[in-house]
Amino acid sequence: MCQLLGMNCNVPTDICFSFAGFQARGGATDVHSDGWGIAFFEGRGTRLFLDPQPSSTSPVAGLVRSYPIHSKNVIAHIRKATQGVVALENTHPFMRELWGRYWIFAHNGHLPDFAPKLDGSFTPVGQTDSERAFCWLLQNLARRFGNALPDPATLFEALHQLTLDLGAHGACNYLLSNGDCLFAHCSTQLTYIVRQAPFAVAHLHDQDLTIDFRDVTTPDDRVAVIATVPLTDNECWTTMPKGSLWLFEAGLPVRHRLTVAGPEKAAC
Amino acid sequence: MCQLLGMNCNVPTDICFSFAGFQARGGATDVHSDGWGIAFFEGRGTRLFLDPQPSSTSPVAGLVRSYPIHSKNVIAHIRKATQGVVALENTHPFMRELWGRYWIFAHNGHLPDFAPKLDGSFTPVGQTDSERAFCWLLQNLARRFGNALPDPATLFEALHQLTLDLGAHGACNYLLSNGDCLFAHCSTQLTYIVRQAPFAVAHLHDQDLTIDFRDVTTPDDRVAVIATVPLTDNECWTTMPKGSLWLFEAGLPVRHRLTVAGPEKAAC
Repeated sequence: MCQLLGMNCNVPTDICFSFAGFQARGGATDVHSDGWGIAFFEGRGTRLFLDPQPSSTSPVAGLVRSYPIHSKNVIAHIRKATQGVVALENTHPFMRELWGRYWIFAHNGHLPDFAPKLDGSFTPVGQTDSERAFCWLLQNLARRFGNALPDPATLFEALHQLTLDLGAHGACNYLLSNGDCLFAHCSTQLTYIVRQAPFAVAHLHDQDLTIDFRDVTTPDDRVAVIATVPLTDNECWTTMPKGSLWLFEAGLPVRHRLTVAGPEKAAC
Repeated sequence: MCQLLGMNCNVPTDICFSFAGFQARGGATDVHSDGWGIAFFEGRGTRLFLDPQPSSTSPVAGLVRSYPIHSKNVIAHIRKATQGVVALENTHPFMRELWGRYWIFAHNGHLPDFAPKLDGSFTPVGQTDSERAFCWLLQNLARRFGNALPDPATLFEALHQLTLDLGAHGACNYLLSNGDCLFAHCSTQLTYIVRQAPFAVAHLHDQDLTIDFRDVTTPDDRVAVIATVPLTDNECWTTMPKGSLWLFEAGLPVRHRLTVAGPEKAAC
């Protein structure tokens, strides 16, 4: 399996602190050493850093950790290969363009029998079930909405239906963003935290690193961080219920809906 | 205007030496300081580094210069903005997927009245004439060849026809690759060199940096480097004729054809 990291904010924010903990799980404190990647939206543009090396030792990850890129939407992934060889073309996140916007997708799970008919509008470059699922999602969004980008709430409804289909094929935790908002689907494991005023001190779980967010924020800042497993050991993270789709906008979860029947749970 | 750098090889090769000279032109030895980018194919995968900062001072460019990424096809670009603000979404090279392959495009020129009807299969994210031209090229390749990737020679024929149309709208030097081969169109200015055994010493034009290629090659290696202006001052670069399309495969120019009437010229 793999691990996911996402960030959605109301002002462009750097992810260096969270990424420092996440990076360590790619071969140092955890086993996800089959490549890693991170995508930053900056306006409509996207920066995508990929490396089939373990993130804990990757020079590119070293740059990302030390070079503050300010973004409202970030998606990162560390890989433990289940389907598809360890290669750059199988490294998440994946990127495509639809409606004149870049879309970024990362997946944690396993969809072994998911082999839908694709019409050629979006075709996988690598061999992963994840990229196939991404292409299928975009193909269906394009078919449903024609040539115009819908608003986030409308997209959420469409994604909810598509995710019901996708989730029937196996474990499908995913993060998806077009730079305006961030969609998160918890199939088996996903958590989030919203940091806002009054800000406090946070300490990483995977490294002895502490930050006082009061030193690096303004009172109006709001940041949602989404991760497979909480990144800090002194904050309260919310565990998303298994089988739930979430929409994050401006640093807040503004919608969520179950994709399977089950009780909602919160950890802390 | 901008400057282009491309590399096409028969074995995966790093571009650190050439990039060191090219990087300096983005704000140090030349004026192309409105962003830069570089794309590396590794198999079917692609790494795309983009930065709207000048390449001469960009931390990402520092990484690319010092971290040897081995690739058979590389495209880089430094920007002097003519159309579209300085922003990440207007930074070349641009990337799209077609036929399950990534395509990379960078452009040097100006196509002020190029406003074709696009059908939505490929839509610009930014505001440049360059990205519009790229989307139009891919849309027309997709229409012509359906759902199957043609061989390089067939692609060359199709691109030649499309480039005739494109070139009628203004200056259109471009580099295009899908990882198998590299297409180069010289509209106003483009040069190339093929390095192969016996290898020799090269000295950069833009920095006092020398490399002895005998130390870093094997006798079978062959590398074509394409640049707007020659990168070294002690080697023989071939000036492509104005209005000519070239196909590079395995480090050699294997086809070229004029896109306007005119004599072929060689400099040295």
